[in-house]
This record gives sequence, C-alpha cells and structure tokens, in this order.
Amino acid sequence: MNTDVSRFDYSELAQWAQSCLTNSGASGEVARNVAYYLLEGDLLGFSTHGLIRLLNNCQWLKDGKSLPKGQPVVLSERAAVANWDAQFLPGPYVVPQAVNAACDMAKQAGTGTVVLRRSQHVASLAAYLTIATDKGMVVNLMCSTPGQRAVAPFGGKEAVFSPNPFAVGVPSSKEPMLFDISFSMTAAGKVRQAKANGEKLPYKALIKPNGEWTDDPLSFFESPGSAIAPLGGEQLGYKGYGLTLFSEIWSMALAQYGRVQGADDGDANTVWVQVIDPAAFGDKSEFLKQVDSLLDDARNSAPADSDAPVRVPGEAALARKREQLKKGVIYAPSTLKVLKRCAEFCGVELPKVATG
Amino acid sequence: MNTDVSRFDYSELAQWAQSCLTNSGASGEVARNVAYYLLEGDLLGFSTHGLIRLLNNCQWLKDGKSLPKGQPVVLSERAAVANWDAQFLPGPYVVPQAVNAACDMAKQAGTGTVVLRRSQHVASLAAYLTIATDKGMVVNLMCSTPGQRAVAPFGGKEAVFSPNPFAVGVPSSKEPMLFDISFSMTAAGKVRQAKANGEKLPYKALIKPNGEWTDDPLSFFESPGSAIAPLGGEQLGYKGYGLTLFSEIWSMALAQYGRVQGADDGDANTVWVQVIDPAAFGDKSEFLKQVDSLLDDARNSAPADSDAPVRVPGEAALARKREQLKKGVIYAPSTLKVLKRCAEFCGVELPKVATG
Repeated sequence: MNTDVSRFDYSELAQWAQSCLTNSGASGEVARNVAYYLLEGDLLGFSTHGLIRLLNNCQWLKDGKSLPKGQPVVLSERAAVANWDAQFLPGPYVVPQAVNAACDMAKQAGTGTVVLRRSQHVASLAAYLTIATDKGMVVNLMCSTPGQRAVAPFGGKEAVFSPNPFAVGVPSSKEPMLFDISFSMTAAGKVRQAKANGEKLPYKALIKPNGEWTDDPLSFFESPGSAIAPLGGEQLGYKGYGLTLFSEIWSMALAQYGRVQGADDGDANTVWVQVIDPAAFGDKSEFLKQVDSLLDDARNSAPADSDAPVRVPGEAALARKREQLKKGVIYAPSTLKVLKRCAEFCGVELPKVATG
Repeated sequence: MNTDVSRFDYSELAQWAQSCLTNSGASGEVARNVAYYLLEGDLLGFSTHGLIRLLNNCQWLKDGKSLPKGQPVVLSERAAVANWDAQFLPGPYVVPQAVNAACDMAKQAGTGTVVLRRSQHVASLAAYLTIATDKGMVVNLMCSTPGQRAVAPFGGKEAVFSPNPFAVGVPSSKEPMLFDISFSMTAAGKVRQAKANGEKLPYKALIKPNGEWTDDPLSFFESPGSAIAPLGGEQLGYKGYGLTLFSEIWSMALAQYGRVQGADDGDANTVWVQVIDPAAFGDKSEFLKQVDSLLDDARNSAPADSDAPVRVPGEAALARKREQLKKGVIYAPSTLKVLKRCAEFCGVELPKVATG
C-alpha cells in the first residue's frame, strides 16, 4: 500500500461531493446521483473515473455544459427499445435511469435496450452494473465519444475512434461478475497518467504519425500526435478494430448521434444500455447454476503462477469496495490535488483526512 | 495465388454437397441449407469452416449425431426473446431460422434474441450475417461449445473455455460490414492447420502446462496439452478472458445448457443470436448515414503502410466471394483431400475441377 495515499470517510465524501454539485447548480437528485456514482468508481478502483471527475462535473454545470435538472427526452421507442436524448444531463444521473428503464422493459419483453445521445460524461461504466445485477438481470453497457478521436483503425496510424469502454454485469449465486474494459490497447486517461508521472507506458500501445509503435506517452500530446492502437496490437489488432466499430455502431449509429453531430460536445457520450432478464429463458435458478459453474471452472483451474489463483472479473474490485467502505476511500496525492481545487471552486471545505 | 489450388463451379459444388447430405439421410430442406451455408463460409474465405466440414456433417447424420429433419423446440419465450432446443439439427439449418425469427421479433419489439442449445456444429458465423443485413437489420452472433475446453483464463495455464466466435453484421448504404473473430489469440482450427503444415504459429498464442508461452502447435496435442491464450496476450489477456466469459454466459448460461449438460456433445454449439432493427430508433436512412460516416472515417484515415489502405471488416471477404462466384470456388490440396473422402463416403462423385 502506498503510504502517500489519504483516506476519507465514505459518507463525509459523499456529502461533500453533493454539496459541491448543488453549489454548482445541480438539483438535489442530480447531485445525489452524480456524487454516488463517481464515488462508486473510486470504490471499485476505477480511480481515473471517480471523484477526480467531480471538478469537471461542477465546471460543466456552471458553464451550462451540463443540464442541472430535468429528464431525458424519448425520441423513439418500441416494446424492447428506446432512443433517448439526455440533453447533456450528467451521465451519472441519466445512465442509472436508462439501466432501470431497460430492466423494466426486460421484465416484460425479455430484453430492454436504451441508447442515449448527449449524455454528459458517464465516468465509470462499472459503477452502473449492479443496478441490474441486484435485480437478477444481466447487463451490457458501452459508450463512445463523438467529440473524441484517439484510437487508430487496424492498419492505420491516425486517430479515428474514441477508446470505447465495454462493461458487463452478471449475477451469480455469490457476488456478481463485473467487467469493464476498453477495446483499445490503453485508455486516454492512462496515457495522461503516465505522462503526469513521467513514466513510459508498460508496452507499445501507441502508433506514431510515421507508423512506428511507441510506449512514449508524450508522443500522444504532440501535434500531430500518436494514436492508441486497437486491442490485439500489431498481430491481432483487426479484432480490437472490429470491436471498436461494433461499439461505435451499437452506440452512435443506433442513437443516430455521432461525430458529425457531436464533434464539439467535448467529453459527452453516446451510450448503449442493454439488460437481459435470464428468467425469460427458463428457471432463474438454473441460470445462476450455469454462471456459477462457468466462474468456478475458471477459479479452480491451474494458475500460471501458483501464488496467484485465477480470478473472476470484479472480484478484486468488490474486495476493494468493501475495504474502502470500512477503512475509508483512498486517494493518491495527484487526485487529492484535484479534489482540493474542486473544494475551492465550489466553496465547500473538503472533509478531514481519516488516515494518511 | 497458390497454383496448387483447384477451382470448382459454385452451382455444381452446391448440388454435389446437397446430394451428399441427402444420401446421408438429410431432408431436402436440411441438405439445401447445410450445403448453402458451408459453401458461403468458403466463398467468404473462412476455409476452416466451409465444405471441409461437409464430411463431418454427413457422418453425424449417418451416426445419428445430427437430426436429419424436424424443427427446433421452443422452451421459453417473451416478446423479444426465445430459448430453443435445436435437438442436434445441423447448425447451418437451424441458425438461419433463428436469425429470421429474431428479425421478426425485432420488427415488432426493436430487438429479437434467440438462444439455441444443441445446435449441431454451426460452422462459420459470418455466413449467417447477411440474412439480417439484407433486411436492413443489425445482427450479433456468438457461440460456445459445451464439449470443448481449449482456452485458458487469464492468469491460468489450463484449458477451460472454447475458442468462441463473435460476429456482427451491419448494413450500410454500400456493402454490409461483416466481422467474425474469436476472443482467443487463435482458433483451434488454426492450430491444427499449423500442425498439419509442419509450421509454427505466427506468434506465441499457447500456454504450456509449465506456464511457458509457445508458438509450437504440437504442444496443443500433447497430454497434458497447452491451452490457447485469450485475446490480449500476456499484458492484456484479462480483456480476452472477460470477453470469453461474456460469450459463454450470453450463450450457455442464458440457454441454460453448458459444460455440465453438454460435455459429451462433441462439436455441437450453444448459440446466441441477436437482431436489432435500426428503424426502431429513428429514421432508417439516418442510421445508414451514421454507419457510412464511421466506415468512411476509417477508410479515409492515413494507413500505416501507404500501399495498404485501411480496410473495413468484410470488404476482403465480400470481394473474395464475388471473385469465387465468377471464377470458381478455391480449395487447397488438403481440403480437396477431405472433399474426396466425403464424395467416397457418400457415394456421390465430386464435380470436375473447373481450373487448377
């Protein structure tokens, strides 16, 4: 454990974040949700998409780039799908609504799908998965960023796509399986982090304008800059490229809101939400048995390193959440600096450090 | 072009394959579909999942491992989903039915999902995509193999999962985008091919029982053998691992038919079919514009190699199909050997070689 880190009491932090948001103009309900889901990202360990994004959220509210209250507009719907315009409502306020609406549709139709245009930045998709898994539902979330070009197609060297996350949540008879990755070799946030820490990336994830592969994060910020390579790299990057197209089509093309419409939308996202009700396919307990069996097969298989048993996606994140709820939420010095700037920006004093 | 290859007239081959299948006991309708979709795999270039699998299909029919005629049984359904028992009907007969049923549901509900247990081997998922895209629908297909363990989880060295394919088809205003990959670093068929040709794999895609990574295909057939690594490899294999779990859960767990039930089912698959009607989300022409824009952005971006423009998934496959329909379907000598064995097994003479 890094001794530089500070820990804060979860409830005090949540209260602080809410006050920051209401001071920036958010309604109570918007503030409660944004604070809760940003913190949920931190609890699960997605620290690049946790409270570090609170300052952005408050700035967007003050600048009119986030809608402080209101509801998404339904543009189109059928029994199992809906297309919403989120009108730049904060992602952590509107995505939970979409997951809940998709759950309701799934109960009736077997699946429920909501696509959302103009959701202000959604932060960590992992934070929304248990909304569905707590109801015994299976969920898949994806999003893309019309205003961002950071990832090259396979065979290319120019940034075309956003580094799109793909997340799934699956109930089991124990903990849910939670999984949240990007379809690219790294995320823009990790490149920024490496640059800030003066480190190289752990492997060559970037393609320079001359076509060379590099682990140098600085190249990403040059003009013209390097592009992030799709998952699979030099040999198998056609897989990550196709998966990236999949996520952009399932979000932007279905929502009918892409880079032509949203070039100037900054960090705002177009989002894909799909919920499946396993009970529509047969007895729910049989579904859980199947999931348990798959996860146990993985857990019980021989590890490559005998000291490191095979883990199921989400295990480490949920353990981190339990630990932080008990002992306090952890922030690295660089994040703490941003929280302090947010406290100042909003005029709400940061809670006292619990430990650290 | 390999001068060793032989070309056959498409219609003559289709007729031959149908006769082989009816001679093995298949109904006319089953024979027509199996012949058509196996050949479709060859036309698109998925040669490990084309007519090379005809002999297997005929053997399964004769051995009672494939049902020669009949219909899948509906186990459960709601407005947008259905769970079918395919009763070991041939995959190329029953999967098109599932895609069509999903299209019908999607027209009503916005999406349509069918999961299928006990589909005899589905061959190439890519072959089924245009059933949906020809109707202006978006489609995603996945499948897993309850009787197969070939892929290790990330952090493991023991085969737990099948090398599961993931395919998507998307209509555009020109050709559809067709994409078909596995979530592992290679497919079992490619390991067999490398072994047969006495070659190494192009990269280290296998993990040996001692935990070492290797490009030696022979290691896969030893006992205990090596396992295929998930997409992402040593650094990012947790992504391919999670995607593999996703595909196994969306197929086997939802269909409620996994490795416990199907351990002895050989090559039979559990299949996930989902169709989405873009018209449920708004005007269909706007959807096509979005897809065109995404694909054109990729096509028009700077290639890493100035002689090799960035391609869209499916472009090469569809060009290969056009060429083969015109000039004849291509078979390598090793495949031709299997076709000859099939001709003998079924007592139906192989058509004359057109060229080669």
